[in-house]
Amino acid sequence: MSLYVGVAGASRPEAALLDQAELLGRRLAEAGAVVVCGGGPGVMEAACRGARAAGGTTVGLLPGLDRGEGNPHLSVALPTGLGQGRNLLLVRSSDALVAVGGGFGTLSEIALALRTGTPVVGLATWSLGLDARPAPAFPVAGDAEDAARLALVAARSRRADPARTPGDG
Amino acid sequence: MSLYVGVAGASRPEAALLDQAELLGRRLAEAGAVVVCGGGPGVMEAACRGARAAGGTTVGLLPGLDRGEGNPHLSVALPTGLGQGRNLLLVRSSDALVAVGGGFGTLSEIALALRTGTPVVGLATWSLGLDARPAPAFPVAGDAEDAARLALVAARSRRADPARTPGDG
Amino acid sequence: MSLYVGVAGASRPEAALLDQAELLGRRLAEAGAVVVCGGGPGVMEAACRGARAAGGTTVGLLPGLDRGEGNPHLSVALPTGLGQGRNLLLVRSSDALVAVGGGFGTLSEIALALRTGTPVVGLATWSLGLDARPAPAFPVAGDAEDAARLALVAARSRRADPARTPGDG
Amino acid sequence: MSLYVGVAGASRPEAALLDQAELLGRRLAEAGAVVVCGGGPGVMEAACRGARAAGGTTVGLLPGLDRGEGNPHLSVALPTGLGQGRNLLLVRSSDALVAVGGGFGTLSEIALALRTGTPVVGLATWSLGLDARPAPAFPVAGDAEDAARLALVAARSRRADPARTPGDG
Repeated sequence: MSLYVGVAGASRPEAALLDQAELLGRRLAEAGAVVVCGGGPGVMEAACRGARAAGGTTVGLLPGLDRGEGNPHLSVALPTGLGQGRNLLLVRSSDALVAVGGGFGTLSEIALALRTGTPVVGLATWSLGLDARPAPAFPVAGDAEDAARLALVAARSRRADPARTPGDG
Repeated sequence: MSLYVGVAGASRPEAALLDQAELLGRRLAEAGAVVVCGGGPGVMEAACRGARAAGGTTVGLLPGLDRGEGNPHLSVALPTGLGQGRNLLLVRSSDALVAVGGGFGTLSEIALALRTGTPVVGLATWSLGLDARPAPAFPVAGDAEDAARLALVAARSRRADPARTPGDG
Repeated sequence: MSLYVGVAGASRPEAALLDQAELLGRRLAEAGAVVVCGGGPGVMEAACRGARAAGGTTVGLLPGLDRGEGNPHLSVALPTGLGQGRNLLLVRSSDALVAVGGGFGTLSEIALALRTGTPVVGLATWSLGLDARPAPAFPVAGDAEDAARLALVAARSRRADPARTPGDG
Repeated sequence: MSLYVGVAGASRPEAALLDQAELLGRRLAEAGAVVVCGGGPGVMEAACRGARAAGGTTVGLLPGLDRGEGNPHLSVALPTGLGQGRNLLLVRSSDALVAVGGGFGTLSEIALALRTGTPVVGLATWSLGLDARPAPAFPVAGDAEDAARLALVAARSRRADPARTPGDG
């Protein structure tokens, strides 16, 4: 059974992140992982472009009801009609999640993954604090190569021990 | 962009339906359609087996959180954790839906498809009445060949005119 | 803990059903049950009007994102943004469900309730057949008084033995 | 139409937050607002206790399927069966959201609210950074009185201009 790695990221990120996202998608696909994302433009599209260029499979969980809204590099485009509810679907569909850049949707995916025990790897994304002190909650990658490597390790490890801690109750 | 045809059906149907479901999946895949289903056993597994044998792509929208619960003939297995909420996802992901056999889950998918404007084709499935009179609401196929043909026509027609009537509001 | 009885029904039913729905809501509230519904017009609004006139509590699970779309007789109006996905929420929120009149949304709620073990009572609603034979799946009430009585008995019984059979997996 | 204010917070917070949450619930109810929450223990229960003591209405959107899991201070307890998917329902049901303390579920609610345009007020909760710089995204209250006041102002303002920016698409 293939590994599934989610890629979360904004639809209109700064340009430098797009190259990183494309390389990330490529590396994930080269390792045989299915790339799951929200199916939109920006980081999502770039990751899909990279994955498809490497012969990989990409899945888009679209927020709306129109399949045509998906980016052109999706192997499978699924209109969920759930709005931001598709963010939780993305997390549940992923053995590990890479969060690329900012955006509040991405932050929600980080939080839902942390809450439900899905490993998260960050790349130029949110950092967290609590009570005025830093509260690092997930590893941060230096670049896309690093992010892919960390995510694949985490996904394999999760797959080997699928007990969802702390669960999704 | 590929057509997506949903196949709804029980996980423990009578045996005769399994051959029909497998042939249905085969015909849909031969026509280039992606087969979407709940990813479980029974009708769902048979349709996926047929589709994959014909080189097609199959997607399973699993009710639980464990990807391992999917049948072995899924190209893409997505744990939704939505329970019977995945039934609406199946409908939203489908350009047309074939309902095979009985089961209340299948009935819910028929109803949600009719409610949201997704074309339905029945095969040995529920019939509807209202006020003690028959109230046929969707075409019924004589066999799997017929069901595939009707579903593909309906899906193409829907794709050509995607306005969802009466919508999903 | 109060009983919760769901009332499913169309937003534009034939007029005769509105009086029935209002009486149903009144009787449920008189028995101390919370009335849960989709929050819209038609059967839903009439049931809420009756329940509130009897001093009861009414909950509307709205399909959209705008609380203002709820009918004016809701104690609590919750915009879910789930479209027809709120139908499953209604079923899950109900100890028993009364289905009033036709409509495919109502049919989906009947089916989801039957699938997940929530008792259903019908009032001038869908009848089911399978393989060209009638397949009655839930009790049908003769009028609103009867429907309220049957639903309250079923809800109490369900509450006393809450094991969800066959479950929602 | 009443204002609805969501209260997000952990089920096992540090003790000092419970008094704050109870006072918060009391102040919201005194102002006539319905308190919406996840229906669990900890911050949620304390806020409900305070709201009910002031004669208010409380709504719990439970993650599981068992109504009995709700805390004892709920006017209305709704089992959603959506797991952490109920977090988005909480956000959609709220005219403004107060986030109390840490917890990743709370963080997801902050993020979903920010993403969909629901005003957020923090109380001893997460702070955000981006690219190693603080990135404050919502006002932080000094205490429960302050949080209630800020949330009520924001909820009224939102109600007066309900255009959801940037929306939930």
